[in-house]
Amino acid sequence: MYDVAIIGSGPAGLSAALTLKLHNKEIVWFGSKELSEKIEKSEKIANYPGVPMTSGKDLNTAFMKQAEDMGIEITDKTVTLISRNGDTYMVLANNEVHEAKTILFAAGVVLAKGFEQEDDYVGRGVSYCATCDGFLYKGKDVAVYCSSPKLEEDVRYLEETCGKVYVFRTYKTEKPDSENAVVLEKPIKKINGGLKVTGIELTDGSEITVDGVFCLRSAIAPTTLLAGLQMDGPHIAVNRQQETNYPGCFAAGDCTGRPYQIAKAVGEGNVAAHQILEYLSN
Amino acid sequence: MYDVAIIGSGPAGLSAALTLKLHNKEIVWFGSKELSEKIEKSEKIANYPGVPMTSGKDLNTAFMKQAEDMGIEITDKTVTLISRNGDTYMVLANNEVHEAKTILFAAGVVLAKGFEQEDDYVGRGVSYCATCDGFLYKGKDVAVYCSSPKLEEDVRYLEETCGKVYVFRTYKTEKPDSENAVVLEKPIKKINGGLKVTGIELTDGSEITVDGVFCLRSAIAPTTLLAGLQMDGPHIAVNRQQETNYPGCFAAGDCTGRPYQIAKAVGEGNVAAHQILEYLSN
Repeated sequence: MYDVAIIGSGPAGLSAALTLKLHNKEIVWFGSKELSEKIEKSEKIANYPGVPMTSGKDLNTAFMKQAEDMGIEITDKTVTLISRNGDTYMVLANNEVHEAKTILFAAGVVLAKGFEQEDDYVGRGVSYCATCDGFLYKGKDVAVYCSSPKLEEDVRYLEETCGKVYVFRTYKTEKPDSENAVVLEKPIKKINGGLKVTGIELTDGSEITVDGVFCLRSAIAPTTLLAGLQMDGPHIAVNRQQETNYPGCFAAGDCTGRPYQIAKAVGEGNVAAHQILEYLSN
Repeated sequence: MYDVAIIGSGPAGLSAALTLKLHNKEIVWFGSKELSEKIEKSEKIANYPGVPMTSGKDLNTAFMKQAEDMGIEITDKTVTLISRNGDTYMVLANNEVHEAKTILFAAGVVLAKGFEQEDDYVGRGVSYCATCDGFLYKGKDVAVYCSSPKLEEDVRYLEETCGKVYVFRTYKTEKPDSENAVVLEKPIKKINGGLKVTGIELTDGSEITVDGVFCLRSAIAPTTLLAGLQMDGPHIAVNRQQETNYPGCFAAGDCTGRPYQIAKAVGEGNVAAHQILEYLSN
């Protein structure tokens, strides 16, 4: 049983992890070994106090080293479901269950909306993790939506594993797809089905029959992860203590709203960590 | 007319100043050339993201250099009064008036309560600034409350200027007082007077006749500076946008509540700056 499960490895997650580690809490930290792709790609950061006129790359490297020096490990797994289980939480990542007393959402803001009916078919044909669920669709036809070149390996894996694979990408790639792949020109609009997924509908109205839909996004909508989480538009609703509507569940950083800034994320991660310490001590 | 008057030179003030300067706003920044005495004295800071295991001294030095490199100047004056003047604010510092469209309180938390009736006699015998008001008490008897060795120069100045000077310090000092000084053993409890100050009462009930009382504190209570500012205990009440109950008046850092942490201050300063930008654009 972990004290805290932190979802997201940007500056909010790091800030919370540093404080919680100092207080000897048991942390499981889900994210990327490279921490924040968004910071890594920032050309110049001029307003982060203490690190003047830095490149995003340098700051992200400093973040990584700091986490490592403090002995904080990153779990490079994709969280696909969180549910409240009595007084604690169950976190499903790569089909493994982790238990934690508290949750900190710090996975950035998910601006892309899900597809129509996507939420209805989670676990019934809709998957967010190729590694976790790909084998369930061996030889079957699937649709794949991919929003990050970093997830190309997952697309490749599905092409190797499944029957016909209909791929829609939000970016351009040079890599050739395999023969069983069909690259979609039109975006996916809606997921169709009865008890389980039966197909997809594209924005031009055309329909394609598939058994599964893989939504490969660098971040999953918080309400998809934890049903009933209260939102305020695209952001998780929190108070000044970074508390969500779930007891023991906190949120920090871009996911709670603008400004989307490193300083703001770092501050909220710190506040959330202190609130988590108070929650755990009660 | 300044766009913003920032009161306080800790990490919240710096964070806001950096962002506002980047947006080419006209800033007047009141504080100490040494920025934050509290950080300067911190032995080790282990949880500030991006600056691993730093000493307070090193971090404060980095903060100073960053402000300097950005061309942000610190006004080493003591703000003693703020008042709303139509749509803008008037800030009194060392008896000079500065006008600003918005205010950011970032002067840390004032844990010490004022004396009984202190608020009633501001400008009528109670002063917060020796340099500003000392000459008004030339040859007259005054009481001096001093809470920081950094303000010893002010005590010295009053001893040179005034008649009898009754001094109470919250710390020990080696420096001898001048002959016209009386070092008080008991703390000041209450300020007495009619239309103007007539004396002080100590905690042992004894009374001393004086014409003025100098309260030399490193920080002045926010409600003493700006009458009617809404508080939440010892903290300035703010919402998630760092707005106070006064339009165009914001607060960030320790003054808004716990945790008293650099990361939290930096985050709130950033949020306040963005909110100020939005306020100014309307």
